[in-house]
Amino acid sequence: MYAGLIDGAWTNGTGALLHSVEAATGTVIDPGYPAAHERDVEIACAAADAAFDVLRELAPSARAAFLEAIAEQIVTLGDALIDIVVRESGLPRGRIESERGRTCAQLRFFADVLREGSWAGVRIDPALPHRAPLPRPDLRLRMVPLGPVAVFGASNFPLAFSVAGGDTVSALAAGCPVIVKAHSAHLGTSVLIARAVDAARRACGLPAGVFQLLIGERAVGTALVADPRVKAVGFTGSRTGGLALARVAAARREPIPVYAEMSSVNPVLIFPAALAARGHTIATGFAQALTLGTGQFCTNPGLLIALDGPDLDTFLDHASAAIEALPATTMLTPGIHTAYVKGVEKRRGVARVCGQGAPPTAPFEAHAHLFEIDAAAFLAEPHLHEEIFGPAALLVRCGDVAEMTAVIGALEGQLTAALHVDEEDYADVAALVPLLERKAGRLLVNGFGTGVEVAHAMVHGGPFPATSDSRSTSVGSLALDRFLRPVCYQSLPDTLLPAMLRDDNPFALPRRIDGKAEL
Amino acid sequence: MYAGLIDGAWTNGTGALLHSVEAATGTVIDPGYPAAHERDVEIACAAADAAFDVLRELAPSARAAFLEAIAEQIVTLGDALIDIVVRESGLPRGRIESERGRTCAQLRFFADVLREGSWAGVRIDPALPHRAPLPRPDLRLRMVPLGPVAVFGASNFPLAFSVAGGDTVSALAAGCPVIVKAHSAHLGTSVLIARAVDAARRACGLPAGVFQLLIGERAVGTALVADPRVKAVGFTGSRTGGLALARVAAARREPIPVYAEMSSVNPVLIFPAALAARGHTIATGFAQALTLGTGQFCTNPGLLIALDGPDLDTFLDHASAAIEALPATTMLTPGIHTAYVKGVEKRRGVARVCGQGAPPTAPFEAHAHLFEIDAAAFLAEPHLHEEIFGPAALLVRCGDVAEMTAVIGALEGQLTAALHVDEEDYADVAALVPLLERKAGRLLVNGFGTGVEVAHAMVHGGPFPATSDSRSTSVGSLALDRFLRPVCYQSLPDTLLPAMLRDDNPFALPRRIDGKAEL
Repeated sequence: MYAGLIDGAWTNGTGALLHSVEAATGTVIDPGYPAAHERDVEIACAAADAAFDVLRELAPSARAAFLEAIAEQIVTLGDALIDIVVRESGLPRGRIESERGRTCAQLRFFADVLREGSWAGVRIDPALPHRAPLPRPDLRLRMVPLGPVAVFGASNFPLAFSVAGGDTVSALAAGCPVIVKAHSAHLGTSVLIARAVDAARRACGLPAGVFQLLIGERAVGTALVADPRVKAVGFTGSRTGGLALARVAAARREPIPVYAEMSSVNPVLIFPAALAARGHTIATGFAQALTLGTGQFCTNPGLLIALDGPDLDTFLDHASAAIEALPATTMLTPGIHTAYVKGVEKRRGVARVCGQGAPPTAPFEAHAHLFEIDAAAFLAEPHLHEEIFGPAALLVRCGDVAEMTAVIGALEGQLTAALHVDEEDYADVAALVPLLERKAGRLLVNGFGTGVEVAHAMVHGGPFPATSDSRSTSVGSLALDRFLRPVCYQSLPDTLLPAMLRDDNPFALPRRIDGKAEL
Repeated sequence: MYAGLIDGAWTNGTGALLHSVEAATGTVIDPGYPAAHERDVEIACAAADAAFDVLRELAPSARAAFLEAIAEQIVTLGDALIDIVVRESGLPRGRIESERGRTCAQLRFFADVLREGSWAGVRIDPALPHRAPLPRPDLRLRMVPLGPVAVFGASNFPLAFSVAGGDTVSALAAGCPVIVKAHSAHLGTSVLIARAVDAARRACGLPAGVFQLLIGERAVGTALVADPRVKAVGFTGSRTGGLALARVAAARREPIPVYAEMSSVNPVLIFPAALAARGHTIATGFAQALTLGTGQFCTNPGLLIALDGPDLDTFLDHASAAIEALPATTMLTPGIHTAYVKGVEKRRGVARVCGQGAPPTAPFEAHAHLFEIDAAAFLAEPHLHEEIFGPAALLVRCGDVAEMTAVIGALEGQLTAALHVDEEDYADVAALVPLLERKAGRLLVNGFGTGVEVAHAMVHGGPFPATSDSRSTSVGSLALDRFLRPVCYQSLPDTLLPAMLRDDNPFALPRRIDGKAEL
């Protein structure tokens, strides 16, 4: 069987066989895939490097057509795709169908972004030959892609954040060839999606190195990030995994950017007036958000922060009741299940359990846990600030707004911070917004952060350790910018300029002339 | 005497006295300044952190007024400033006067950039309450500043790339408080400029932590970069220095971005038709660019690449003659002088000297050196690819365009690549442009890269080791973006939104609505 899609061919491997397992049963799924060798990584990187100049100089509309062709090919995979994702991930069929929809919509969204063209960042400062004391030369700037990108997909979104997910799509849109290291939890899914991308690549007449897939253990990923031809890394996964890749990237002769989306407890702040007025509704919404996808969302609400008092007790009763009504559900992998059970056990020793979902009826199911603790104890135990991946949350009871502020101040960086507020809370909330901005990539009011819209104004990122680079988002059109760098062209004659910088603006890109948007 | 400007006061120090020396004579300049203690670094970081929320929420026009006030205060320093810079740097008076002009113009440029407002990156995706299957919430994005920034100024531009130079100005413009570690080569200059910035700060009624200066040895810089309240670093200097700070930043619990501009030989490619038609003119221009500021520009042309032949011999005769006519001039510091002399000595053992400037007539003067070597030997000796800081250049004779390409391919990242071309050369040049884009932040035709325009389309950056982060520029309006990160606000009521995101757009910022520029 195949060790990967390398330089346009499904390459046979002779390494140790790797298998995905059925999430629900732990049963090994055939076929197994042999791990790629270091030599395969070499070949893939050389092919990506060779394909770079072709991909990056494609007209924006041609790259857009490639993304749209990928979406079509994914749809063409039909039920075979849905079947294997459900088996490998344990996620419900309806969820996977809607994730497929999101994945294809995301491809089409970036196609639109490419055609619109402001990603190219074109700026022209025309020559001022008569300026005193010195003339100004003609200066033109555009963003160019960084080079081949290594992508490590997430276990929790086997389609939308994996082989043809956000990192791959935004890197391809930027003009960067992509080499995906297949996630060990969904090898079958990865191979199917890679077939779809490859079919689209062939249909568009693009070189083989534009998109490749490698199957392997950690060593393959390390070799990929260490290869001098790889110029950036996209990763979604654990803090340990992300930091390991960041260390490899930093130790290279030429360090490269790593965009690792890692760890977040996504605090939910419930303010007094909202708690009094809508405690029951918030509790129900919270229980649903906590257990969505068995709590395996990056944006899962793992921390509740509220002022102590009778309204909070009532809220807790409602939340516990809502949670108790929810069944246990399958986790993504046996390993994730074990880690969840251990994490919950450990927390049980420090915080009080005040709500639990219905107990598991199958070996790899998890049930929700709601813990509570007072602010002083939370502040004294930094390990309570860490994420338990799965449907576990911790309520922190605060004595007053000052203590609430201290709790937020003690948190590490987050993807989201959700605020439940009524008008009477606004003054308290307004005072907290600057602190929350320092802590999170997205602030939201009267909702939960689990839904991440693919849009222009979305940020799915945040200060460390939510991501390794707070200047970035992995969802939305701004995700493309992660894979670009600026180049200035001074006094180049029109014929030597890249097409997108020529006077006649053949791709009709938005331009800034002398710093002002051209109308 | 003072160990720095810390939390609004010139703080007396008791550490070992540090002195600048006269560049021309090596004579110690009084007064000396005591090194700051770790405790001073602590206080400065706390003050910067406390000032952050005020600075970042100022109206853009108020931050612009602060930058303009700094420019005014620098002008007010008058000849006292010019006198100390000349003594400390050994650079000619006229050059320092024009560098002061550049520094003030740069402050005013960023004031204009702030008022224009596209730096804020405002994006609004309005709610779609009736969208099926799910409604879209109101999403708004703006760029927020990272937090306090540590700035390490350059020896070679004691005004334009130092205490109130490009890094400081772009960080303040972004809304980040700045703590400058004064460069040991120009302590007197640093103190004067810090006084000017502080006067402007007071006049604008801003908190003390907005701008601070620390004097000290390496330990002070290390402590500054390691402090958890510091969120980014700007540095211009040696590769060793930049990489040391990058290591400190990467080893923090929360790693932070380091923008280090380090090392570049700035290849100059002379193509055959240009060489035949204008060899003499290019040679003269080259000799001037090489010796500008005693060759101590980041963009100094340290490498010439051309095709072997009689035209190149003639060019070399002209270049040598032009260089021989130029006097030796003072270097910035005795240490830099020693390193230059050593670097030239070492190179003498490997490459042939084919032109030298007039010999020094004073102890810390340097004279220009032009070496030559053939491409095969250059490719075999990677240490020849490294920068000798000062007026030394190496001509690489290539047998054909393929060898020229190999030489460029072997180079590390560069700030600039200059191309001397005539129309008959265009085909060869066009084939090389994609490779050059991978290697350099700025490509320029028929000139030398020494002049770096403060403009919208400028890039003063480039792949490693030209900088530690190829996604950035340290000159031009894009430099501001280095100190920003995106935050998304979802469903916030208008009153809770930051002013710049409110519906009525009180600062008249350019906005993108649903991805399209608002007209």
